Amino acid sequence: MTLLVAGWVAIDEIETPFAKISNSLGGSATCAALAGALFTGVRLLAAVGEDFPAAERRKLEGRRIDLAGLATIPGGVTSRWGGRYHFDMNTRDTLYTELGVNADWQPRLPKGWEDSGAAFLAAGDPLLQRTIMGSLAAPRVTMVDTIKFFIDSALDELRETMRQADFVSLNESEAREIAGTPSIARAGRTLLDGGPRGVLIKLGEYGAAFISPYDYFVAPGYPLEEVVDPTGAGDAFAGGFLGYLDTVPEITPAQVRRAVIYGSTVASFQVEGYGPARLLTLTRDEVEARYLEFRALTHFEAGK
Amino acid sequence: MTLLVAGWVAIDEIETPFAKISNSLGGSATCAALAGALFTGVRLLAAVGEDFPAAERRKLEGRRIDLAGLATIPGGVTSRWGGRYHFDMNTRDTLYTELGVNADWQPRLPKGWEDSGAAFLAAGDPLLQRTIMGSLAAPRVTMVDTIKFFIDSALDELRETMRQADFVSLNESEAREIAGTPSIARAGRTLLDGGPRGVLIKLGEYGAAFISPYDYFVAPGYPLEEVVDPTGAGDAFAGGFLGYLDTVPEITPAQVRRAVIYGSTVASFQVEGYGPARLLTLTRDEVEARYLEFRALTHFEAGK
Repeated sequence: MTLLVAGWVAIDEIETPFAKISNSLGGSATCAALAGALFTGVRLLAAVGEDFPAAERRKLEGRRIDLAGLATIPGGVTSRWGGRYHFDMNTRDTLYTELGVNADWQPRLPKGWEDSGAAFLAAGDPLLQRTIMGSLAAPRVTMVDTIKFFIDSALDELRETMRQADFVSLNESEAREIAGTPSIARAGRTLLDGGPRGVLIKLGEYGAAFISPYDYFVAPGYPLEEVVDPTGAGDAFAGGFLGYLDTVPEITPAQVRRAVIYGSTVASFQVEGYGPARLLTLTRDEVEARYLEFRALTHFEAGK
Repeated sequence: MTLLVAGWVAIDEIETPFAKISNSLGGSATCAALAGALFTGVRLLAAVGEDFPAAERRKLEGRRIDLAGLATIPGGVTSRWGGRYHFDMNTRDTLYTELGVNADWQPRLPKGWEDSGAAFLAAGDPLLQRTIMGSLAAPRVTMVDTIKFFIDSALDELRETMRQADFVSLNESEAREIAGTPSIARAGRTLLDGGPRGVLIKLGEYGAAFISPYDYFVAPGYPLEEVVDPTGAGDAFAGGFLGYLDTVPEITPAQVRRAVIYGSTVASFQVEGYGPARLLTLTRDEVEARYLEFRALTHFEAGK
């Protein structure tokens, strides 16, 4: 049982209304890998430059994360991202994106990784996502994430990649844009027409909706009194979702619902610290305790 | 068992990206009364002018709604509201508000109505809301709703009115504003400090959160593929919520959770038509069927 996570390992600079931090470990693959490792063995496929600090690398070591796929590109520079959140923490501006080594990274799957049972393709070039998916022998479950940049710049490639994935995850605004409708429910069904088995629409603080031909499930947002930094919540969600699914004997609709709640649970911890700081100390017991809280949040009895 | 509903009966003009309708029956009390009457007997306390069309009045007749408190003010003009919704149907601009008879309406409770068991005070002058609440002998449950206008113009009066109510309902943006925090969870707890037994924060298409000293409950939004007109959804929610609670032998936390779902259910029908058009044909059986769908939307099994 292993989850392949492919995406960015980066250095972030984050401004919120309350604080500003620099040189913070970030990147989609970082957050998804740390989240997934709470449930299963993770294989991290990503690239950094020679400038990537040893101290940050050490944060990824000593866990259930195989770093054989974390390439250090000779002469390369690690990707950097800067973002600023508004007062409500729901909206942000990207201040800069420095692609660095990810400008032309051509991932090479370490020997033996073809047998990965699950794979998360974090937001990136859809063709690259598809190539990585295609290099796996017989994955039981794959999920593709994306962002507005690729919807705007590579929609046809993205549609083909989504068609080949089991699950697709994207933010609400991205779902509305790609489907051309203000209705989340209709956007989900439109995206299903493209081919994936299920669509996960991330609703930020309001939770997430899972839509498939056979199911419609809504997970609430966990009622946090303080959100420190929303960066990486979607990737932590993906890591928890797929990490859990990688461990189940059979991927049934009931297991997918559980996986959505595990993803939501891990994401709710992710936003409690800057970048993936909270995930570095998070335990499976803490995850299980909050999973139970999610049940208590939404339970109600039959009607009259 | 009776639910007193006090507020506006009005004539609306509504623009959405898809249509425009004029001279449409509207008003907070209209929607709440029609919703409440699905569950219990309703007493409608409101004022209209001599221009209020007989055809609109007839829509309220022949139901479990006692119209003895619907005053026609001699020489008065019915209140009118015009609003325009944006593409995502979550935000709107108020185009105009003509107070008409509600500029200086002094409600008089019809004889015998002091024994009302439940009361909904729709958005309005907080002092007027308090006066009406105070005229009831021993209501089992009361709820006060408000809007930004009164938060901005009469906050101290509003706080005192909220202190005397069992439940308070308000929109998410209003809750954030009155509590001075971006966190819904913290806003809810801040509002509880003021005195009410529970706070209902309406999240639009994302559902609703109920917060009390002993409970935190999140109801999902019902996944509609098409929202025709969101006007009055909050009032329909209130009518369903209190209408149901008026019928239960004891108002327990579990009953309040059920009431939140009944409110959400009725609100989800409300937005399927212009103004309260859908409520005019809605049956209790339809409500019960959708209540079950709400259960199916959120159910998930225990963790590992």
